[in-house]
Amino acid sequence: MIRRLAIIGVGLIGGSLARALRAAGQVDQVVGCGRSEQNLQQALELGVIDDYWRDPADAVRDADMVFLAVPLGAMAGVLESIHDALAPEAVITDGGSVKGSVVADAVRVFGRVPPRLVPGHPIAGTERSGVTASFPELYRNRRVILTPLPETDADALERVRAMWQATGAQVSEMAVAHHDQVLAATSHLPHMLAFGLVDALARMQDNDEIFRYAAGGFRDFTRIASSSPVMWRDICIANAPALSDVLSRFSDEMGDLADAIRGRDGDRLLEIFSRAKLARDRFIDGIDQTATD
Amino acid sequence: MIRRLAIIGVGLIGGSLARALRAAGQVDQVVGCGRSEQNLQQALELGVIDDYWRDPADAVRDADMVFLAVPLGAMAGVLESIHDALAPEAVITDGGSVKGSVVADAVRVFGRVPPRLVPGHPIAGTERSGVTASFPELYRNRRVILTPLPETDADALERVRAMWQATGAQVSEMAVAHHDQVLAATSHLPHMLAFGLVDALARMQDNDEIFRYAAGGFRDFTRIASSSPVMWRDICIANAPALSDVLSRFSDEMGDLADAIRGRDGDRLLEIFSRAKLARDRFIDGIDQTATD
Repeated sequence: MIRRLAIIGVGLIGGSLARALRAAGQVDQVVGCGRSEQNLQQALELGVIDDYWRDPADAVRDADMVFLAVPLGAMAGVLESIHDALAPEAVITDGGSVKGSVVADAVRVFGRVPPRLVPGHPIAGTERSGVTASFPELYRNRRVILTPLPETDADALERVRAMWQATGAQVSEMAVAHHDQVLAATSHLPHMLAFGLVDALARMQDNDEIFRYAAGGFRDFTRIASSSPVMWRDICIANAPALSDVLSRFSDEMGDLADAIRGRDGDRLLEIFSRAKLARDRFIDGIDQTATD
Repeated sequence: MIRRLAIIGVGLIGGSLARALRAAGQVDQVVGCGRSEQNLQQALELGVIDDYWRDPADAVRDADMVFLAVPLGAMAGVLESIHDALAPEAVITDGGSVKGSVVADAVRVFGRVPPRLVPGHPIAGTERSGVTASFPELYRNRRVILTPLPETDADALERVRAMWQATGAQVSEMAVAHHDQVLAATSHLPHMLAFGLVDALARMQDNDEIFRYAAGGFRDFTRIASSSPVMWRDICIANAPALSDVLSRFSDEMGDLADAIRGRDGDRLLEIFSRAKLARDRFIDGIDQTATD
């Protein structure tokens, strides 16, 4: 049970957490903080938060749980703002898509790994943003990865785990560096491909005609290119080493494919496509099993 | 009105054309041909076809419209089989995703561009295949591109156009080479990226864990990697020059992106992502307008 939850960044992610905890009866009071007063006012009117502050230091005062749901590039500044205002028992967690950079920011601001910081990442979202896009079921049956460090307080970890379980999420743990590698492959790289493909086509001559003849497959394939440019700039910079590594593996793969196409090597193409189809079909089976667990 | 339609390859594409034309009352008789007797038997039982033959030459005899819905690698063989059996007035069209290779195959078999051949490409489909996946609405509001040549008979073109319009499709015309370039960019390249991404991840260590943490965006993004490996092998070989060209443009784009990530060049990343998001959002507006036309 959370007495007072402070949410820094009351958008899709932060707002949905507040709504889910309220629906589960797991929070007494929710206070918000953010850059857009209009968005905070909406959050208040929608009953997502009970009160709001413009300064993160005011928002976290007397909170026993603090959730940071700001772009990765804003994490260091928020941590600096709240550092002196945190209650001693306050647990801090976040929703950032990269964990190494959040830990590094915290170490820079706190002078060490803060024991009450539990880095986390709910793997959920839609292309929409802002508190009006939030809803209480966003995390149901979705995965949340926590990346505790050796210094992390066991009680703080347990409280964050219980919070996410109350939203209906499946919580697991992973090392910081491993999280950043896995997400580089499954999320950050696909976003780069979608942004890169749409941009490459947009830069071609007759691009209007090209988009006109794109079919449903293209629409699905590029949906993630409608995501927030600022959020993705921050993710790329925060996860540059792991993302560069998977980008170069992918580039090698595409080089092989391009060679096979230029050389009309049907056997090689069939091998690559068959292996991919098998993995993809098995992956879908895996997801369906999770959904019915 | 079609008196006798011969469909070579009674799967999703061929079967849906037969169903749509029957529903519109635009065909008297439909005969099928294919490699799987079981599939042809199912097509008969479902009422998609009235009769079937195992030899394409038998199937096209006395047909006034012939639709070739076989993988691109099988086109030349089918054209050879039917060459001597076609009625003089028979119109031939096809559903291949590449048009240059179909025309080249026809020229090789017929010794010239056959005036009654109207190369075509319905931009529609699902990941499912076989006649049981076919349905009469597949082509409704979808685009069909016809690529007539200077030698193409005007009456044959008009008959093929009327056939597709009867299915509810939006029919347009394009030059053969231009079609193959546009489709390389909007369909063939995205399929290469989806196949390549899934294969690159499948080849990594711990690939089971990687797929386990892939979220909904990944599912959409890689859906097209479940498509038929044989069909895509044939498309790659048939459209090798145009596909190689867009692959190398894409490769340059990804090289720029990788440089910006390694160099933590936030401004450059924001520029690329913003331009892509703008193009993608505009493209979705365009699709929505088409849908309500």
